[in-house]
Amino acid sequence: MAIITLLTDFGLKDGFVGIMKGVIWSIAPTAQIADITHEIGPQNVMEGSLVLAQAVKYFPAGTVHVAVVDPGVGTTRKPVAARIGSQYFVGPDNGLFTGVIEAAEAEGTSIEFYHLTNPKYWLPQVSRSFHGRDIFSPVGAHLCKGVALAELGTPIAEPARIMVPRPEPTADGFAGQVLSVDHFGNLLTNITQEQLKGARGVVIKVGEATIDGLSLTFAERKPGELVAMIDSSGVLQIAVVNGNAADKLKVGIGTTVLLRFC
Amino acid sequence: MAIITLLTDFGLKDGFVGIMKGVIWSIAPTAQIADITHEIGPQNVMEGSLVLAQAVKYFPAGTVHVAVVDPGVGTTRKPVAARIGSQYFVGPDNGLFTGVIEAAEAEGTSIEFYHLTNPKYWLPQVSRSFHGRDIFSPVGAHLCKGVALAELGTPIAEPARIMVPRPEPTADGFAGQVLSVDHFGNLLTNITQEQLKGARGVVIKVGEATIDGLSLTFAERKPGELVAMIDSSGVLQIAVVNGNAADKLKVGIGTTVLLRFC
Amino acid sequence: MAIITLLTDFGLKDGFVGIMKGVIWSIAPTAQIADITHEIGPQNVMEGSLVLAQAVKYFPAGTVHVAVVDPGVGTTRKPVAARIGSQYFVGPDNGLFTGVIEAAEAEGTSIEFYHLTNPKYWLPQVSRSFHGRDIFSPVGAHLCKGVALAELGTPIAEPARIMVPRPEPTADGFAGQVLSVDHFGNLLTNITQEQLKGARGVVIKVGEATIDGLSLTFAERKPGELVAMIDSSGVLQIAVVNGNAADKLKVGIGTTVLLRFC
Repeated sequence: MAIITLLTDFGLKDGFVGIMKGVIWSIAPTAQIADITHEIGPQNVMEGSLVLAQAVKYFPAGTVHVAVVDPGVGTTRKPVAARIGSQYFVGPDNGLFTGVIEAAEAEGTSIEFYHLTNPKYWLPQVSRSFHGRDIFSPVGAHLCKGVALAELGTPIAEPARIMVPRPEPTADGFAGQVLSVDHFGNLLTNITQEQLKGARGVVIKVGEATIDGLSLTFAERKPGELVAMIDSSGVLQIAVVNGNAADKLKVGIGTTVLLRFC
Repeated sequence: MAIITLLTDFGLKDGFVGIMKGVIWSIAPTAQIADITHEIGPQNVMEGSLVLAQAVKYFPAGTVHVAVVDPGVGTTRKPVAARIGSQYFVGPDNGLFTGVIEAAEAEGTSIEFYHLTNPKYWLPQVSRSFHGRDIFSPVGAHLCKGVALAELGTPIAEPARIMVPRPEPTADGFAGQVLSVDHFGNLLTNITQEQLKGARGVVIKVGEATIDGLSLTFAERKPGELVAMIDSSGVLQIAVVNGNAADKLKVGIGTTVLLRFC
Repeated sequence: MAIITLLTDFGLKDGFVGIMKGVIWSIAPTAQIADITHEIGPQNVMEGSLVLAQAVKYFPAGTVHVAVVDPGVGTTRKPVAARIGSQYFVGPDNGLFTGVIEAAEAEGTSIEFYHLTNPKYWLPQVSRSFHGRDIFSPVGAHLCKGVALAELGTPIAEPARIMVPRPEPTADGFAGQVLSVDHFGNLLTNITQEQLKGARGVVIKVGEATIDGLSLTFAERKPGELVAMIDSSGVLQIAVVNGNAADKLKVGIGTTVLLRFC
């Protein structure tokens, strides 16, 4: 019994995701399929990379992750499959795997990428606009059944990467930015707990708001108040207790977040 | 093969739900997982309690329900697990289980609650903001594998409850209110079929509308007309045939619904 | 191990879909369940028929498709089950199966429909507004376990159909229309690749826009530009590269699409 996860920007209204499951179960009838999300912003490869990297570490060895945020579908961008540590990945070679590659490199985990060139493991007909159905789902299902990576295509030395913005050191702290906004309106930044280590006091500026000090939990401040804290994935987040920080501050992805030690 | 259900206010865009499935399948690889919903309004414990209580009776004995609507995450509110009749429940002790507790009491079903205090059944690292991942999912998976409740922590005599508003008797009927609005815009009230039993004629007032008589099906009135009927869960609902009552009447949760017998 | 798919207009916020899974697993505990979509527009039988017909061909023989877009629930419209080729279908007899019936007829696949009249395979109590829970899910689960169609009811000669608009031939091409708008805002038309076969040049008019020529992939034009192409299901679609055509053109379902050969 193997696990396949799906992460796409397909949304849930059109049946695209259901079709991928039909393709997978036609090949690997007992696979367990988990949706990571299908609400990645359309064509937002960066968001897909971030969410994927956060999720995969909670899945067991042998899991196959099929990820499709694919504005270049039908062009020369390569379809790829990879082994990173004990897990497998399938999708377009457009930077979508940047987050998992960087995490693996930080931990010294082995990585191998393959260009998918063997149509034996695809659907018989391949469209120019839905490789999630025609290439990535069947390849994922075959990996799940034990087909070797080397059967699927040819090795790639340098998979594509996107540039993830890093916080810049300032005179008294860091200038970071909002990388994503979650379902609750919490602002997730690119400032990590490592960068906050050992800090006594901090002041955070985002939009027109200033937040004095880090909290440990939402409940340390009153409903409606702003709070800055390390979120469950280890990055600095700005939230409103029982509220929506993105709406309250009228800010979003890309907004500068200034962190000052004091 | 055991079943785990998930009910949260996490939404589907961030990967939180996928992560919970990864945690569960890392511990209980063959569990079947059903999403009840992840669209409970943020921090809306009352809505979570209502939806959970409606859903659980359609699941078989032995099902483990993991429910997380948890504004007090990281504070002193207790993480709990329970057995109610033949099913299991895991989540925060904040009133989220009020609906299932009340249903069990009405039927004389046995109830036992435990404060989760044994970190052996949690993830090794517990964050302060995502107990759905770190405590509730692993505990649910261990229950699914047969770990005894008493292994997980210590008994609790009085789990937390929320106050659910009841309809008030009036001179000639009841004054109830809208408890929830469903996907179709139907208004679900706190007036039950028991309170309507034996009634000959009824007139219902909600917002600026008056509805004369109960219908048995949507199709008894014309598209666009208001209709009052007992819904599939046994409560009085106000709907618009092939339309959206909440939009048409410009009302929502908390709106008074007057029922007059005549 | 059998597969059941679910397609409804129930949305995901109320627990209706989770309840259907509870009913199914209470009867067929090892069934694999795939959600095709639950975001069909409320009461939109045409949209349900289109999405269902596109999805089913990617599922293996023996799959049971439970489809519920059911404005006539509780009235005299019949609950039905069917075998079409090697797959099974359960739902209301209101035209929802038009797409799969037409596809089967085009391919000469055998079809048999049954009126569900045997309450032995339903829940003990049947509501007037949620046959998805009370009739269709349990019948689907019993089919999945091998119960014969003839056990479930009596044969029907002519299942209900809806009229699907066809493109009209014009002096120099076709006048078609937009049948659906997908998650990305792409406009899917009722003009098929068969009608475009052998065409040298084409000009497409939709709303106030004119598109010269068909593209093979999104990436042939620049981000923000309009593109006409055959989509992954074989129909003419109008899209904006990395954008939303429905928003840009301010058009939607029913908009005329003029195709001129030149």
